Amino acid sequence: MKQLYSYITKTCIAAALGVVASVAIAQDEPLPSWNDGPSKTAILEFVAAVTEEGGSDFVPEMDRIATYDNDGTLWVEAPIYTQILFALDRIKEIAADHPEWQDDPVLKAAIDGDMETIAKSGEKGVAQILAVTHTGMTTDEFAQIATDWITTAKHPTMDRLYTDLTYQPMKELLAYLRENGFKNYIVSGGGVDFMRPWTQEIYGIPPEQVIGSSVVTKFEMRDGTPVLVREPELFFYDDKEGKPVAIQKFIGKRPIASFGNSDGDLQMLQWTLAGEGRRLGMIVHHTDEEREFAYDRDSHVGTLVDGLDNAEAEGWLLIDMKSEWNTVFTEE
Amino acid sequence: MKQLYSYITKTCIAAALGVVASVAIAQDEPLPSWNDGPSKTAILEFVAAVTEEGGSDFVPEMDRIATYDNDGTLWVEAPIYTQILFALDRIKEIAADHPEWQDDPVLKAAIDGDMETIAKSGEKGVAQILAVTHTGMTTDEFAQIATDWITTAKHPTMDRLYTDLTYQPMKELLAYLRENGFKNYIVSGGGVDFMRPWTQEIYGIPPEQVIGSSVVTKFEMRDGTPVLVREPELFFYDDKEGKPVAIQKFIGKRPIASFGNSDGDLQMLQWTLAGEGRRLGMIVHHTDEEREFAYDRDSHVGTLVDGLDNAEAEGWLLIDMKSEWNTVFTEE
Repeated sequence: MKQLYSYITKTCIAAALGVVASVAIAQDEPLPSWNDGPSKTAILEFVAAVTEEGGSDFVPEMDRIATYDNDGTLWVEAPIYTQILFALDRIKEIAADHPEWQDDPVLKAAIDGDMETIAKSGEKGVAQILAVTHTGMTTDEFAQIATDWITTAKHPTMDRLYTDLTYQPMKELLAYLRENGFKNYIVSGGGVDFMRPWTQEIYGIPPEQVIGSSVVTKFEMRDGTPVLVREPELFFYDDKEGKPVAIQKFIGKRPIASFGNSDGDLQMLQWTLAGEGRRLGMIVHHTDEEREFAYDRDSHVGTLVDGLDNAEAEGWLLIDMKSEWNTVFTEE
Repeated sequence: MKQLYSYITKTCIAAALGVVASVAIAQDEPLPSWNDGPSKTAILEFVAAVTEEGGSDFVPEMDRIATYDNDGTLWVEAPIYTQILFALDRIKEIAADHPEWQDDPVLKAAIDGDMETIAKSGEKGVAQILAVTHTGMTTDEFAQIATDWITTAKHPTMDRLYTDLTYQPMKELLAYLRENGFKNYIVSGGGVDFMRPWTQEIYGIPPEQVIGSSVVTKFEMRDGTPVLVREPELFFYDDKEGKPVAIQKFIGKRPIASFGNSDGDLQMLQWTLAGEGRRLGMIVHHTDEEREFAYDRDSHVGTLVDGLDNAEAEGWLLIDMKSEWNTVFTEE
């Protein structure tokens, strides 16, 4: 009994000290979830250099633009992109209103959760599933649908809200750059209207700093009220070459720092690093199968081949999730 | 001599008092170039209402979005849109490198400044002139070309830099809303890349808050360096129905205040006013042929017909330039 009491006391003191220590770290030291290592050093040195007034690498605040991929860079993307899971949940929810979908092999597979048939249907099949679940409604209606889903749906293997499966070290990076006068932009292949309802709360990134893929929208008057209707036609695909194109269209400034995790982000990194002055381009490398997932070359999500092969030559810094992050997600 | 001395002294004192008074006004009273009248009152009351914490019309800062047309709303657009004049100057400058243009009736007319033939060529002809002057170069090259022109070219009848022909009352409005926590966005039918090089300096609006029409751009590697090349294909036409569409695509929030001057701005005003809560939608009415230009229904620039006919029913407030602005442009 005495031993147990002593143990509890020690544990409590340790826990209390732990809390105090972590608060102190959060206030005094940036990036507490990053272990000392090449990535943390690179970030700290970069920020120190571009914010040092009078220094040779100084960048005025208005030009401190940082861009981030979302899937696999700021939140989990394995085993399947979150937006696909949203579409599969959504099609089940509305299938009863569309009995004709039972006659379509791809849509029927989606309703039945038959992943093998969906996978076989390829990009065209997925596009069809996305079209029937993401279009035909107004922008306001879609924002509500996305919000309802994201606040309740859970990850298939980790059984947590997707917004809890955002990377703590990257959220600290967002905050740290923001505190240092940076404007953070998401530049994602995912749908912009799927992200915007929650990025402010989860990442501190407002809707106007979220760039992504999008469908054509059409202005219409309905009973005297203007609405924007989502059409089943792609407006812009924000991946690979599309990322620098979108950055120029939306921001009109070249980022000085960019963060990605897959070959779809490399053109954004190239565009960033090709600017004059000091730059930072980093790639989150998913190496931690225990705490998250380990994947790169052979993965069907977040495929990373060129990013690994050309990192050194191009100056892209790899972030080794397993060794460099002491925390991946916040505790439940 | 004594009389002259006395006169000079009086004038000097008056001038000095004038300076003091105007400084005092600038510090204490917003919108000094606006006469007391319905427009100034509407602006002041709107801003007071949406910024009053705890008030029924309060809007948090993050949602204080204001959108402004550019041509005819923030700067002069008569007798011809500035960007057309830029194209006509530009085509003369580069014509020597393109002898084949002499065989094209529209391009030859543009090179010769034959306005009648250009006018007859209609939209298609103008598009052709814009294509050869606005595309084929990289985005960085175009920004330099636009900058070189805008810092030297002068208005055909008023003989001043175009950036001096921005409306002083509207610049005060931009500053006033910004001081009250608003984020100002330009939403113009004009080319976004033609505006971005100078909007920060002239309006205090950074490139990322400028939305406009744009061409397709293509990511390319040139000698190992990534560039974005401007293609002769329209990407987005930001006028009429396009304005609310672009606002949703770029900002993802509905403005609470919008300012335009032509029928091309009405959908933006409708979209703004259809939101919940207190809203402001205003139309600059060009009524001052002495200090600027007088035009509306029959004009080929800034055509305003529906805007006049439906203003009352729709809740659009007309700004009467002649009676409501005591200054149009800043003194030379």
